[in-house]
Amino acid sequence: MVFSQEEVEAHLGRLEGWELEEGRWIVRKFVFSNYMKGIAFVDEVAAISEAFNHHPFITIDYTTVTLRLTSWDEGGITSVDIKEAEQYNEAFEKMRTE
Amino acid sequence: MVFSQEEVEAHLGRLEGWELEEGRWIVRKFVFSNYMKGIAFVDEVAAISEAFNHHPFITIDYTTVTLRLTSWDEGGITSVDIKEAEQYNEAFEKMRTE
Repeated sequence: MVFSQEEVEAHLGRLEGWELEEGRWIVRKFVFSNYMKGIAFVDEVAAISEAFNHHPFITIDYTTVTLRLTSWDEGGITSVDIKEAEQYNEAFEKMRTE
Repeated sequence: MVFSQEEVEAHLGRLEGWELEEGRWIVRKFVFSNYMKGIAFVDEVAAISEAFNHHPFITIDYTTVTLRLTSWDEGGITSVDIKEAEQYNEAFEKMRTE
């Protein structure tokens, strides 16, 4: 079920770094200290998204990796997007502290 | 040294799938039969770009990986962009025939 804008914003309040974009995407930029760390993060993101069978739009601009999530089939943001974003944040924190 | 538009187009004539975009990028979309093949290609692209120390702008939209190259410091397309694009094509062909 698609969340209302208020519901999305309540979830984003607990989700570091993610913002609502154009009312239908949630977006976060992840910045790395070198290029290959960003690529290793993309590999983690890919594995997570395969497990969800729900794939973010990814851009890699040197050391900045941007993820955009939406539920196309539902026409908005759903709990799957929020749960996946949480796992991306956990993967990022884990890489930062390694 | 930056190539003229005519020079870029002459090179692109020998470089399958690449097109000039906005006069200052060369671009190719690579489509894969599944998501993880596209991710494996991005890993190859990353290794090649580290060897050149020249990194393309990458987007991953499910099974479509798009690469954009330009020489920022030179303000246009140079022989480095063309050589790198050739290596990306070779990596793609190799993955396709494996």
